[in-house]
Amino acid sequence: MDNASMTPTFSDVLAAAARIAPHAHVTPVLQSSSLNNLVGAELFFKCENFQRAGAFKFRGACNAVWNLSEHDALNGVVTHSSGNHGAALALAAKTRNIPAHIVVPDGANPAKLKAIEQAGGKITFCRNTMQDRDDTAENIRQKTGAVLVHPYTHVDVIAGQGTAALECLQQSPALDFMIAPVGGGGLISGTITAVAGKAKNCRVIGAEPDGAADAYASLRASQRITDIVSNTVCDGLRATVGEINFRIMQAHRLEIFTVSDAETVAAMRLIWERLKILAEPSCATVLAALIKNKNRFEGRKIGLIITGGNVDLDSPLW
Amino acid sequence: MDNASMTPTFSDVLAAAARIAPHAHVTPVLQSSSLNNLVGAELFFKCENFQRAGAFKFRGACNAVWNLSEHDALNGVVTHSSGNHGAALALAAKTRNIPAHIVVPDGANPAKLKAIEQAGGKITFCRNTMQDRDDTAENIRQKTGAVLVHPYTHVDVIAGQGTAALECLQQSPALDFMIAPVGGGGLISGTITAVAGKAKNCRVIGAEPDGAADAYASLRASQRITDIVSNTVCDGLRATVGEINFRIMQAHRLEIFTVSDAETVAAMRLIWERLKILAEPSCATVLAALIKNKNRFEGRKIGLIITGGNVDLDSPLW
Repeated sequence: MDNASMTPTFSDVLAAAARIAPHAHVTPVLQSSSLNNLVGAELFFKCENFQRAGAFKFRGACNAVWNLSEHDALNGVVTHSSGNHGAALALAAKTRNIPAHIVVPDGANPAKLKAIEQAGGKITFCRNTMQDRDDTAENIRQKTGAVLVHPYTHVDVIAGQGTAALECLQQSPALDFMIAPVGGGGLISGTITAVAGKAKNCRVIGAEPDGAADAYASLRASQRITDIVSNTVCDGLRATVGEINFRIMQAHRLEIFTVSDAETVAAMRLIWERLKILAEPSCATVLAALIKNKNRFEGRKIGLIITGGNVDLDSPLW
Repeated sequence: MDNASMTPTFSDVLAAAARIAPHAHVTPVLQSSSLNNLVGAELFFKCENFQRAGAFKFRGACNAVWNLSEHDALNGVVTHSSGNHGAALALAAKTRNIPAHIVVPDGANPAKLKAIEQAGGKITFCRNTMQDRDDTAENIRQKTGAVLVHPYTHVDVIAGQGTAALECLQQSPALDFMIAPVGGGGLISGTITAVAGKAKNCRVIGAEPDGAADAYASLRASQRITDIVSNTVCDGLRATVGEINFRIMQAHRLEIFTVSDAETVAAMRLIWERLKILAEPSCATVLAALIKNKNRFEGRKIGLIITGGNVDLDSPLW
C-alpha cells in the first residue's frame, strides 16, 4: 500500500506532534471580543500564519521529512507545488539537511519562488497541468531517488496538518466546533482525525469557496468530482480534493459551508483589522462561513484554523 | 506641582505595571529570522498592536485611571485626542466604571470615533487647533469635575507607557538597544525611564519622521521647538513634544534617527510581510531607522516597540 492510500489515525497525529516539536512553532490562539460580538459566539483563532514558512504546511512537510528512515532520507524529497507546500518542504528538508526538489508550474508567484530558494529548495519548472506536474516530479524521483511527498494525500502530511487542530484543542477551552478551509483536503482530513481522537464532542466543519467547491459537490454526490475548474481568489484552495482526503471527509459526514469571494475578502479584512494579523484569503473562508451561518453557532465555542499569512499585499482584489 | 510637570521614576513604572496588570494584555515579543538577516542584528518586536484598543496607549490611560483616588475618580476623566489615546482612555475608564469625556477635533477618522463610542466614551467635537482642544477639555473639566488625563505629559501616562519597554526587557535576552518612535514623547520618555531603571547597559534610541522631527530639532537646539508644522503619514507622531517629555529626553541625551515617509512605508510592509502582523506606519519608523543605520547595530540585540495596529486599510499611501 503506498502512502497516499493510507488512512492516518489519531496515534499518527500524536506521533507527528512529538516528531515536529523540535522544529515547528507552537503558534498562538488569539481572540477578539469585537469578532465574538459580531458572530455571537466565542471564537479561538489558531494562528498558523505565525508558523515557520508562514503557513500550517510546515507541519505536514516536517512530519514527512522526519518520519523517513535514515536510508530513505539520503536522497532527499521531491514534490510539486505552486504554493506554500513547496517552501514548507524545502524548509523542512533543510532542518534535516537533506535535498528538496520542488517542481513549480510556469507562472508561479515570484515571492513563493524566492521563499523556496531561500529555504534551499532546488526548483524545476513545468507546464501548469496536473499531468505535467506529476510527470516532472516522477521523473525527478526516478532520477534522484528522492521520496515523493505529495502536498495533501501523503499520510504523514495529513497527520502533520492535524497537529494544528490538536494544539488548538490543547490551548482552548472545550470547543463545540472546529472549522478549517478545504482545498486538496490535507488540512481538513488531518483536522478530522485530530478532533475525532481528542475531543469527541467537537464537530469539524469545512469552508470552501463557491468557485472551487469540489469537495462540497463530491460529498453531495457521494463520489469524488474532479472536473471542476476553480475560479477563486483563495489561491490555497484551488486544488481538487484527494481520494484519501475525500474518503476521510465522507466517513465523518463532514459538513461544508461555501462562501463567495466577496464574503471571503470582507472576512479577511475583518481579521486584519480586529486581530491585527495578516491572514491569507484562503483562511478567511472560515470566518466568512461563520458570519454567513451565525444562527447555527450562537453562544458556542469555535476553533478556526488561520492557515497562513502569505498574502500578496499588492493585489488589487483587497 | 501639577501632574504634567512631575518626572516619573522607575518606581512609578514598576507601580504602573502592577496597577495595570489586571486589565492590560501582556503582549508577545516576536522575531523574524529574515528581518534579522536584513539588518544583521537580532530584533525583538514588542507587539503592542495586540494591546487592548490596539495600541500601547491603553497602558498609560489605564495607569492614570486606576491611580485616581476613589474621590477623584467619581467624576471620571477627560482628554483631547484625535487618535488612539481617546479610545484607550475610554476603555480604561470603562474598566473602572467611570465616565470618560473625549474631545475630538473635527475631521477625525470615523474608525477612531467608533472605537471611542464602543468603549463608552462621551465625544465632544472641537475645531482642530491645539488651543480649541485645550479650551474644550478645560471647559468640560470645570463643568463636570472630571480629571484631565493629557495624552503624553501626564506623569501616570508616561509611567504607564514605560511598562511596554519593561515587559519587553523581561521577555527578551539582555538587549543592547531599545528603539521607539517619538511623537508627543509619552512613549519615549516612559521607555527611557523604564530602561534606565531595569537595564543599565541598554541604550534607548528614538525614531522620528522627517516631516515631524520637532524632537530631533529640539534636542539639537537644546530647547523645545514648537513651531514645526507636521507633514507625515505617521498619524500617531504629529504632536509636538511635551515640555516634561523633552526634559527627560534631554537629561538622557537621547539620540534620535529621522526617516522619510517612503522609508517608513517600505518598513511597514516588511513588518506586515515578514512578521504577519498589522502595524501602524508610526511604529514602522523604528524598523526604517534600523535599516537606514544598520552599520551601527551589527550583531547587537535590539528591542523595537511596535506601538499599534490601527491602520487605515483603505489608504492609497501603502
